[in-house]
Amino acid sequence: MFDFKILKQDKKGRSRVGVFTTPHGRIETPVFMPVGTKGSVKTLSPDELKEIGAQIILANTYHMYLRPGHKLIKKMGGLHKFINWDRPILTDSGGFQVFSLGGNNTLRKSPAPNDKNNHKSNVTIREDGVEFRSVLDGSKHFFSPAKVMEIQHDLGADIIMAFDECAPHGCGRKYTKEAMERTHRWVLECKSAHEKLNRAHKVKRALFPIIQGGMYKDLRIESAKFMAALDLPGIAIGGLAVGEPRKQTWEMVDSILPWLPKNKPRYMMGIGTPSDIKEAVKRGIDMFDCVLPTRLGRHGAAFTAKGTLHLKNESNKYSKRPLDAACGCYACKNFTRAYIRHLIMEKEILGLRLLSYHNVAYLTRLVEGMKKGIR
Amino acid sequence: MFDFKILKQDKKGRSRVGVFTTPHGRIETPVFMPVGTKGSVKTLSPDELKEIGAQIILANTYHMYLRPGHKLIKKMGGLHKFINWDRPILTDSGGFQVFSLGGNNTLRKSPAPNDKNNHKSNVTIREDGVEFRSVLDGSKHFFSPAKVMEIQHDLGADIIMAFDECAPHGCGRKYTKEAMERTHRWVLECKSAHEKLNRAHKVKRALFPIIQGGMYKDLRIESAKFMAALDLPGIAIGGLAVGEPRKQTWEMVDSILPWLPKNKPRYMMGIGTPSDIKEAVKRGIDMFDCVLPTRLGRHGAAFTAKGTLHLKNESNKYSKRPLDAACGCYACKNFTRAYIRHLIMEKEILGLRLLSYHNVAYLTRLVEGMKKGIR
Repeated sequence: MFDFKILKQDKKGRSRVGVFTTPHGRIETPVFMPVGTKGSVKTLSPDELKEIGAQIILANTYHMYLRPGHKLIKKMGGLHKFINWDRPILTDSGGFQVFSLGGNNTLRKSPAPNDKNNHKSNVTIREDGVEFRSVLDGSKHFFSPAKVMEIQHDLGADIIMAFDECAPHGCGRKYTKEAMERTHRWVLECKSAHEKLNRAHKVKRALFPIIQGGMYKDLRIESAKFMAALDLPGIAIGGLAVGEPRKQTWEMVDSILPWLPKNKPRYMMGIGTPSDIKEAVKRGIDMFDCVLPTRLGRHGAAFTAKGTLHLKNESNKYSKRPLDAACGCYACKNFTRAYIRHLIMEKEILGLRLLSYHNVAYLTRLVEGMKKGIR
Repeated sequence: MFDFKILKQDKKGRSRVGVFTTPHGRIETPVFMPVGTKGSVKTLSPDELKEIGAQIILANTYHMYLRPGHKLIKKMGGLHKFINWDRPILTDSGGFQVFSLGGNNTLRKSPAPNDKNNHKSNVTIREDGVEFRSVLDGSKHFFSPAKVMEIQHDLGADIIMAFDECAPHGCGRKYTKEAMERTHRWVLECKSAHEKLNRAHKVKRALFPIIQGGMYKDLRIESAKFMAALDLPGIAIGGLAVGEPRKQTWEMVDSILPWLPKNKPRYMMGIGTPSDIKEAVKRGIDMFDCVLPTRLGRHGAAFTAKGTLHLKNESNKYSKRPLDAACGCYACKNFTRAYIRHLIMEKEILGLRLLSYHNVAYLTRLVEGMKKGIR
């Protein structure tokens, strides 16, 4: 289980095609993972995701913990059964949401101006974990590394993520280092709790650690070395694409590439534009996820070979063309831009569905194309 | 074309199974017709509607006329092509919406208390047609019988409805009679305009007249006789289930049954609860439509053999049961009440989709069952 085989590598020895084996089946990498924040990839059914070719989906621990609750999901037979998805699932650690949805914590220099939860002590970081208030009702909660492992094991994902602190972008070197070191201490606790749970439940789930270190190459390298040494079944890169210029993003990735284990899947978190995916795959990143395709869809926009198409634009009013001429997805095979525009203008749910479907299919096909290129 | 064959009748000679032939294929009756108000049966795709077994869908002339406009749809090749539905389509006349969405007209005694458009002169009824203001932007429009025929021919439906005035419930005998007589004069204009358009476009579309007459048996009978005499390919009953007690609804239907042509499809407008459908089929009604299944779905409720199920109820929180044990639809085969409840609580679109799917499938299956019973 959690065997990763590299089937093919490009000449430069960076991009690669591999197969990662999980309890719910094999994942061919590189792979784009659609995000089902609350146990549903927004607007889409599991059957549609399979039709599109999604091999694995994500769910957010933070959201599922708050509602309907991990205990309920455990009682219902786990997340796979609950949401009726029999392929692999990855759950994130909840760390990113605790910090990003928690609003202003005392460490953040400049809270976002439109931050609705911008009041003090929404998030209190302690050595043993994080105290936070629910974004839904303000109730108090506490996530420790062990707690986050327990929640993810209750959800029953194939791949679970270590609890990490994603320090806010621009918080300075001192704090970034502290947060990274805390993340390192926490991952050890995660690993120990996770292994106990695997033994206790007689299951095999894979724990992935998350490399942090902000925009500091030396910290990134330190973190990469530390996480690689844990010898877990995969490794993730967190805290990138959080507001920094893309040049810097890829500098950070490049700086740690030599330290990433070659024979394990590498997951770059939160990546999902076509150009980001291309850059990631070029560097031998195997997995990525993003809410962008479904979010863009809900905002009336579609990925196309010629850039993002905004359906609301008047120019689509009489267009008999599909969203993307080269795309053979259900939306592109069956509907014109004019009709999808009409649906979006009228706030018809079918419009959101068709755009979300297309955008997930577009990224999936993009990655398939890159796989073929590498082969 | 528009041949109606009765294949089977029950012993009492009332309920019947028939086949109605249209340019887009045959419709087996009795048939429930899902409503695609704005060119989309809310939340559902055309493929799903076919999977469910929908044989014909409705679209609303009023809405399609306002947005995106019948001229646009004509330019796009007609409604079938625009919305990618190759089975029959019926468009209503827009009359009902003009009056019901127009808000308080001077004739309405008691405007609905939550009527947002409750200001004077939104609707002016003249002998030659109706002046009204758009519910969208307040712009002025005029529907005459000929105009409504032109719009529906541009949309290109298989079955088009005559322009009628549905007098508000409780407006008194005098006004009901006036409105009925106007409807009778209008249907003649509709017929003549419609026949011209059929000839001019070299197409075959069927015009159905609409029986009015409020809650007055003698007016209903007068209207039924008048409409039957037109010898059009089908006949509709309008202005019922508009607020009156159901006992009265069926009294009105019963009073006109002897006057309806036996060999033509009978369409009772706006009927869509399971019990109403049963009552209608019992009386030899062949077609009915209602927004209820999708509207209920969007409100978090499902039809079941044991009555309407409200998913938000706490009792569904841990329920591993399907929405309806006897239903084999996609939603019932694949998802628990607990999951659908979670989706509804979280306002996930998939929840609305699953409930809408189930509700349309439920009514379709109900009618199928009745068909078998008659056979």
